[in-house]
Amino acid sequence: MPSLQEIRSVSLQALCRAGVSPSYAETQLSLLLEAELRGVPSHGLLRLPRIIERIGNGATDPSTSGAGHWRGNALWQVDGRQGLGPVVAVEALRTICRKASDTGVSMAAVRNCDHLGMLAWYAEHVAAQGQILIALTISEALVHPWGGRQALLGTNPIAIGVPGADAPFVFDMATSLVSMGKIHDHASRDLPIPLDWALDAQGNPTVDPNAAKSGSIAPFGGAKGYGLGLAFELLVASLAGSAIGRDVKGTLDSTELCNKGDVFIVMEPLADTGAVVSRYLEAIRQSPPSDPATPVRVPGDRALKTRAERMDGNISLAADVWENIQQLAQHGPAPCRATQEKTYEA
Amino acid sequence: MPSLQEIRSVSLQALCRAGVSPSYAETQLSLLLEAELRGVPSHGLLRLPRIIERIGNGATDPSTSGAGHWRGNALWQVDGRQGLGPVVAVEALRTICRKASDTGVSMAAVRNCDHLGMLAWYAEHVAAQGQILIALTISEALVHPWGGRQALLGTNPIAIGVPGADAPFVFDMATSLVSMGKIHDHASRDLPIPLDWALDAQGNPTVDPNAAKSGSIAPFGGAKGYGLGLAFELLVASLAGSAIGRDVKGTLDSTELCNKGDVFIVMEPLADTGAVVSRYLEAIRQSPPSDPATPVRVPGDRALKTRAERMDGNISLAADVWENIQQLAQHGPAPCRATQEKTYEA
Repeated sequence: MPSLQEIRSVSLQALCRAGVSPSYAETQLSLLLEAELRGVPSHGLLRLPRIIERIGNGATDPSTSGAGHWRGNALWQVDGRQGLGPVVAVEALRTICRKASDTGVSMAAVRNCDHLGMLAWYAEHVAAQGQILIALTISEALVHPWGGRQALLGTNPIAIGVPGADAPFVFDMATSLVSMGKIHDHASRDLPIPLDWALDAQGNPTVDPNAAKSGSIAPFGGAKGYGLGLAFELLVASLAGSAIGRDVKGTLDSTELCNKGDVFIVMEPLADTGAVVSRYLEAIRQSPPSDPATPVRVPGDRALKTRAERMDGNISLAADVWENIQQLAQHGPAPCRATQEKTYEA
Repeated sequence: MPSLQEIRSVSLQALCRAGVSPSYAETQLSLLLEAELRGVPSHGLLRLPRIIERIGNGATDPSTSGAGHWRGNALWQVDGRQGLGPVVAVEALRTICRKASDTGVSMAAVRNCDHLGMLAWYAEHVAAQGQILIALTISEALVHPWGGRQALLGTNPIAIGVPGADAPFVFDMATSLVSMGKIHDHASRDLPIPLDWALDAQGNPTVDPNAAKSGSIAPFGGAKGYGLGLAFELLVASLAGSAIGRDVKGTLDSTELCNKGDVFIVMEPLADTGAVVSRYLEAIRQSPPSDPATPVRVPGDRALKTRAERMDGNISLAADVWENIQQLAQHGPAPCRATQEKTYEA
């Protein structure tokens, strides 16, 4: 297995060959590596080849961090101009985190940037620096309404980060019952899926993961999860002016321009609330578990444990993923070149 | 059955006798009546006697709308000073709605006001006036962590309102699987509860609603609903400086001072997004349903249908609730008097 250092340097080379500047490549790669470290390979380096394909196809512009302007004193309105998701988002967050330290709350509404990846990464960064983040993003329609048969909603995740005394609290979930990645994983391993996960293209329940791929996923938590995902879809589109429902494109493929929206809200906590947060979380961890062998968990605990193990060198990358990245680093679509970064053209 | 007009006037009289000024009584009552009209009696006039008891016991101050100050240009920090929930909240919303029309986003963080009641009421008002609202509030610990046995989290609801071309979209849910009211309702009708709803005081699953009353309710949607409710609890406490977990008091009884927190975020949508919202919702309603006899529903549809029927005079109040309110209007704790309203002392 390659070391973390080796994975990092080969992946940077692959992005660089595709025309990404070193600092933008670093941002994009930090996000993907963090997903690997936290044990979320579906949002990890598996995604790198598609990102590079999108650049090669002109669906993604690797040189822009988007164009923003203040719509009101505290609302930063961004056109992502097809930039890399984390590059546009990090630039927007930098702007509104600074603003929120003055105004108490600030928000960015973003459209037309690429897939953001694992939202926990953003929430952790903001919370580690002492501010609260709510992050929302929209995907292509993959989820059916509760009581419906068609994919009409995105998987529409939310992440919330809150500063703690020691580590920040980070919660990140999709409003779908499972990810499409998990269904693809079952398909590739020839395993049936539980009957409540998904519908086929005709809108009937199915245990066949291949039938589910062209169908729709269930919302989590029944009518409530459906309502929540729908509320996020409407809220983001109304603020970002992005596409909605079945009009959302470019979050899954290598050719379509990405027209989805993202919303970030940064808030300034009161002084010294980190100790309250950490004490409460510890009380939850120490409370009696339903299964004596399994202590009560706080969201993020498992990810941080995995991260600590993998930082010690136990990172394990699927062989074909690593092979693919090495190929891209050596024979990617373009020779390595220094591109001009465009930072927030107004 | 009494008419809507009669219910309103007798209830106002009851609040007035308890020392509430006519305009504050009107605010409190509008909220409770709206819950009745929407078919949510658990948040309706059933709650009026407790509100009046709390005032009589000095746990609630009916004369204040709280004291607020700007913590930053866009964050309105409020001490509710034990005021009536909707009175304090409406005053805070008025302040931040005005601010958000200038800054794009504004937020209120509130502590120490009484129970807010049905959050949908606030979301609908804000969205009907053309702005987006996220509302969060915390309750006493009634919900167990996923994988735990003890009530450590509130039922922590969220409401989201988004303007539409015709009616606003309003979504309102608790992060618990069911409400404690529903468990009380089963107890009073001697009906068993499903095994996944709640645990008894020892933390074991139970079908006995009376055992569940002293135990804990499950979060909705398993680990995800637990994480979401926990994130709301931490976010609100960090912003409002309010109590957390088992330290939260005064949302259920008649004597404790209420020390929970509430957060409202008001956002300015882009122009003309209402039509996009309404068109999308209509496409969802018209999409093929899983049961041909039951069209796909959008959150709020059923409540609005019930409301339309009840506005036509079909309001039905439980006989004992109506009896109780009539008693309070005639023999309440204090004679009717004009109290001085205190509006936002700084």
